[in-house]
Amino acid sequence: MPADPGFLSRVRVKKYGGTSVGSLERIEGVAARLAEDLARGEIPIVVASAMSGETNRLVALAERIDPDYRGAAYDVLVASGEQVSIALLAIALQKRGIRAQPLLAYQLGIQTDSVYSKARIQKIEGETLLGFCRRGVVPVVAGFQGVDEEDNITTLGRGGSDTTAVALAAAIRAPSCEIYTDVPAVFTADPRLVPDAKELARVSFEEMMEMAALGSKVLHIRCVELAAKHGIRIHLRSTFEARAGTWIVPEGEIMENPLVTAVTHDANTCVFVLHPVPAGTGFLADLFDRLASRGVVVDIITQSDTGDGRRLAFSVTKEDVALTRQALKEFLPAQVGVEALEGMGKISIVGVGMRNNFGVAARFFRTLADARIPVQLVTTSEIKIGAVVAADALPKAADALAGAFGLRATGGV
Amino acid sequence: MPADPGFLSRVRVKKYGGTSVGSLERIEGVAARLAEDLARGEIPIVVASAMSGETNRLVALAERIDPDYRGAAYDVLVASGEQVSIALLAIALQKRGIRAQPLLAYQLGIQTDSVYSKARIQKIEGETLLGFCRRGVVPVVAGFQGVDEEDNITTLGRGGSDTTAVALAAAIRAPSCEIYTDVPAVFTADPRLVPDAKELARVSFEEMMEMAALGSKVLHIRCVELAAKHGIRIHLRSTFEARAGTWIVPEGEIMENPLVTAVTHDANTCVFVLHPVPAGTGFLADLFDRLASRGVVVDIITQSDTGDGRRLAFSVTKEDVALTRQALKEFLPAQVGVEALEGMGKISIVGVGMRNNFGVAARFFRTLADARIPVQLVTTSEIKIGAVVAADALPKAADALAGAFGLRATGGV
Repeated sequence: MPADPGFLSRVRVKKYGGTSVGSLERIEGVAARLAEDLARGEIPIVVASAMSGETNRLVALAERIDPDYRGAAYDVLVASGEQVSIALLAIALQKRGIRAQPLLAYQLGIQTDSVYSKARIQKIEGETLLGFCRRGVVPVVAGFQGVDEEDNITTLGRGGSDTTAVALAAAIRAPSCEIYTDVPAVFTADPRLVPDAKELARVSFEEMMEMAALGSKVLHIRCVELAAKHGIRIHLRSTFEARAGTWIVPEGEIMENPLVTAVTHDANTCVFVLHPVPAGTGFLADLFDRLASRGVVVDIITQSDTGDGRRLAFSVTKEDVALTRQALKEFLPAQVGVEALEGMGKISIVGVGMRNNFGVAARFFRTLADARIPVQLVTTSEIKIGAVVAADALPKAADALAGAFGLRATGGV
Repeated sequence: MPADPGFLSRVRVKKYGGTSVGSLERIEGVAARLAEDLARGEIPIVVASAMSGETNRLVALAERIDPDYRGAAYDVLVASGEQVSIALLAIALQKRGIRAQPLLAYQLGIQTDSVYSKARIQKIEGETLLGFCRRGVVPVVAGFQGVDEEDNITTLGRGGSDTTAVALAAAIRAPSCEIYTDVPAVFTADPRLVPDAKELARVSFEEMMEMAALGSKVLHIRCVELAAKHGIRIHLRSTFEARAGTWIVPEGEIMENPLVTAVTHDANTCVFVLHPVPAGTGFLADLFDRLASRGVVVDIITQSDTGDGRRLAFSVTKEDVALTRQALKEFLPAQVGVEALEGMGKISIVGVGMRNNFGVAARFFRTLADARIPVQLVTTSEIKIGAVVAADALPKAADALAGAFGLRATGGV
């Protein structure tokens, strides 16, 4: 092959999501944008999701046959969605005179474990992928899929195509990965709740992981974890606009951290309050064992004694409410009362800047108190504070916190 | 593995076509029928087509982007249809407590050449396939697809899933292959044209190949060719009824051959008549070279001299009419007149029994003459006679020939 010292520096992994390839017109739009990238001297490696709606359509077919089925066949089924979109995108590229090759997981040795529907990537043959680039062919890779040791198709779960893109970047030792999506950037708050939220030029991996865990839908936590592990900087951009977007980078690359980077919310919480709870840690251990064995993911747990007996509160997601009720019914002694507070949500602030600042928590609670928003449960880490509040109070809470922590486009702290 | 001398004799390759898996209800029906097969002690290997309509839907997507595109991406696209149907069928089997594994071409090493959209199978890893059976897992194989030397997906063209089934049977040295379809058998004539056509219990490979070439849609010629080459007997049966269907077998297995086995028609012909044609064979060679280089498949060619100059007539399919006109326009000297007879069809009789019988041709032409059906062109081989007639005369021709050659359920020769 010809020596080309600049070759690797021109390779760009570019991931286009479901809405970005959601129609034939949009697929043509992506092809046109890639043609511009090539004209600028970039060497693209493309990763695509299924056309939006397609994965849901396929899942519905499987569920009509057997709503409870999970296993290898399920992954074979849903992986077909990406096969369609990469083929169509490759055709749209070829129409523009660009050599392109749709590539499936087995062709690139995207090896995963065998945990169907939630598989994790173990290795990728980066050289195979680069081989296409060296021959002047644009690889158009199916996101979301891998193959296990027995060569069966696996899928990576939510956010899977983002994870594929980051993993490909890691496999070819690229310094970064571009993720094109239907939002132009990461914002300091959800613009639907806080209309004057600011676009963030840079966010640290750690902050982005917290934001993903706390309800931000922009990137899935697994994709950010993988990027952090391999030091792959993520450039999140709009498919439909030429704006710069947001870079998700190692913390060290951000010169000046604001106290708080963003406010994140999630309207998907239910709080269970148990009272009176028997004394002794054995009870708690047994209770949470029981919930875990049912597949219930417990988020926040608090315990208090208000004089009339010990009170235990914990939060779960809406989806797990029925399972939780069932487990509690089977497990709890008759004298323990159960109260379920449904329609709750979580409001959180995230920022590496709060690590060394002790006033943040006080200002957080003061802001919610001034807005007359009662707090049910609290959770904190080094770089976040979260509170469970009524779901219908989330817009007011987000807006008040955006004001208190300088997250509006119009004004600072 | 346990010694099981009867194992191989119980393995059955069973292919279900697009209408057989055309809805979730029908997929469940196939699963139920396979459960019965297993209960009877059979060891099924299943091949499935895409759900009916799905391949056309995918083709339409590609054509909306680029109507002229053919290549690797096209095959990746359309092959996704079988991926969906085998996954759904595997889920339906598992719901019935049957272990099943959807399998794609790359997993079974279904190796083809790289002629995309019309690839030919070169080899299959039969032992891999049998391994699933030995472990008590029903392999549910995607028909129609293969992989080429570079591991790209290829597709086999029309009738591809039938070809896959026969090739799998050959790879595991099975003596036969069951093809389940929406017709219950091969008939002596198309029952839509000849309502009292007879079901054939047995047809020879050679006859079936002629019938496929002459317009019978029941099996594609490539599938029958492959079966003949490997001596795989095909059992064609209805998906929806328990009838015996038709066996397609080596000629030696048919004890008594009727004079004519079937009448076949094809309403897809156009005849071009050129007059006057320059003398010399060079002209004909150049003309048919030119047509071939345009991809036009010429079927029947006749030449005559009726005193007013040489007259050349040849037939092509409807699809090739535009290409043919274009090629003739470029190639022919101005003085050669061109007449195109559109709306033509071909009516043929097929039967190994006519090999040693000289009266068949006479009776064929007498029958058409008595029915006042003019014949434009004639083609014969050892076991067939075909005539190009007006397409709207085909029902009358088929009916008359069925009567003349004893092809009705009610009566003999």
